[in-house]
Amino acid sequence: MPFQFPLRVYWEDTDAGGIVFYANYLKFFERARTEWLRSLGLGQQRLREQTGGMFVVTDAQLRYLAPARLDDELIVTAALQDHGRASLTIVQQALLKTEQSPPLLLTEGSVRIGWVDAATMRPARMPAPLLERITPSP
Amino acid sequence: MPFQFPLRVYWEDTDAGGIVFYANYLKFFERARTEWLRSLGLGQQRLREQTGGMFVVTDAQLRYLAPARLDDELIVTAALQDHGRASLTIVQQALLKTEQSPPLLLTEGSVRIGWVDAATMRPARMPAPLLERITPSP
Amino acid sequence: MPFQFPLRVYWEDTDAGGIVFYANYLKFFERARTEWLRSLGLGQQRLREQTGGMFVVTDAQLRYLAPARLDDELIVTAALQDHGRASLTIVQQALLKTEQSPPLLLTEGSVRIGWVDAATMRPARMPAPLLERITPSP
Amino acid sequence: MPFQFPLRVYWEDTDAGGIVFYANYLKFFERARTEWLRSLGLGQQRLREQTGGMFVVTDAQLRYLAPARLDDELIVTAALQDHGRASLTIVQQALLKTEQSPPLLLTEGSVRIGWVDAATMRPARMPAPLLERITPSP
Repeated sequence: MPFQFPLRVYWEDTDAGGIVFYANYLKFFERARTEWLRSLGLGQQRLREQTGGMFVVTDAQLRYLAPARLDDELIVTAALQDHGRASLTIVQQALLKTEQSPPLLLTEGSVRIGWVDAATMRPARMPAPLLERITPSP
Repeated sequence: MPFQFPLRVYWEDTDAGGIVFYANYLKFFERARTEWLRSLGLGQQRLREQTGGMFVVTDAQLRYLAPARLDDELIVTAALQDHGRASLTIVQQALLKTEQSPPLLLTEGSVRIGWVDAATMRPARMPAPLLERITPSP
Repeated sequence: MPFQFPLRVYWEDTDAGGIVFYANYLKFFERARTEWLRSLGLGQQRLREQTGGMFVVTDAQLRYLAPARLDDELIVTAALQDHGRASLTIVQQALLKTEQSPPLLLTEGSVRIGWVDAATMRPARMPAPLLERITPSP
Repeated sequence: MPFQFPLRVYWEDTDAGGIVFYANYLKFFERARTEWLRSLGLGQQRLREQTGGMFVVTDAQLRYLAPARLDDELIVTAALQDHGRASLTIVQQALLKTEQSPPLLLTEGSVRIGWVDAATMRPARMPAPLLERITPSP
């Protein structure tokens, strides 16, 4: 079961085509990743203060299948797909809540985030306690 | 003659009402203020590196008279209205370029920006050379 | 008691000053107004389909007292201050949730929204059932 | 030579990491595609009024190599890579203007856009005159 984050589509998210602007799914994905990390006890502002590091996105892929509209309720998922010592790959979906089940898949993608030193922006190994929280041992 | 900054309305600026989303005029106003400062030789990134200070907005007022739409060409103005030792008040307009003249006023407002220490966010006096550039002696 | 809407500050809301970008409070205010209307049974997408009308903002005033940062939890309020036959004035606040009480006021303002015909963008009287929901008789 | 569109990084584009927020490159890419189409005589607002159709993004891929910061000047490119009867694939880059040449590649990607009926959002064949403008015969 991937992590699930609910959100609502507001005016700010839509464009003159009457649908959610394509870049905004990357906002939605970021919110879900942030809440997934928070659910593991990892607040990014605090991480940065404690470790001097932060995540930056290095790759993103999106496939848009169906549009979302004003007032729609979405579920955005995040699930760890893969990881190294300095990066994580997370698969994500935006689904439309419907009266019927299951929800309708609108957009899916994957995002690779790398750990960097916030001062230099250079890639760095994730601190061990961070990686342990994200990748529970079996 | 106020400072004038031209811009184009893109998909990102519009909402499902088919018009520019109301918050985005504050983005347009900020771009014009930034270019006005730059025209005075004041780059904000460099200012911060050199002085440790930055501007933050303390008050904003907007009046929306007519909407802008996708592909519209706007002119955004910025003119100093008033200033103290720690703040500036700038009047701004967004106008629609038309085939006829003059341009049509869409949105107008005023924005008060205060100088703060970037580390503490506390109000501070503007450095004298900064204020001199902004308020030329008569 | 004004209507209260909770929200979280994400990366998308912040700027290089390390704080929430000033225009984004108008997004937060819009979300809270939308949820306030929804709490009265008024979905804007449905309203538009049923009546052909929609709200547009005609005036906005903001006062910025203290900044919000990444990961902060805010409460955004909305309360009807005044109304005519074609417009509503709503007072709004963004407050920072703190361990202590009460929450800290960050930004406050008022927003006037007018009812327009969505096709022509011309001001129009609000449909009576709409106005009745918004302004309960004493 | 791909189409080139210059832009400046403003406060609105940055986040608390001090760099351009990752989703905003999709805004920059959209602006460049729009100006590329406009350079071919294709205004999207007018296209929609004349044909009832519009482009929507169906796929996007991004690779982030280096960050952009406040006040940076970027060049965003757009070049047709491939097309069918109902879609175009456009390769795009965001490059940092530097004192030296050549510009530094920051972000690159490809975006597939499909032509849809704006009322139904269903895929449709691009009108022949549209496709002819975009894909000049040899």
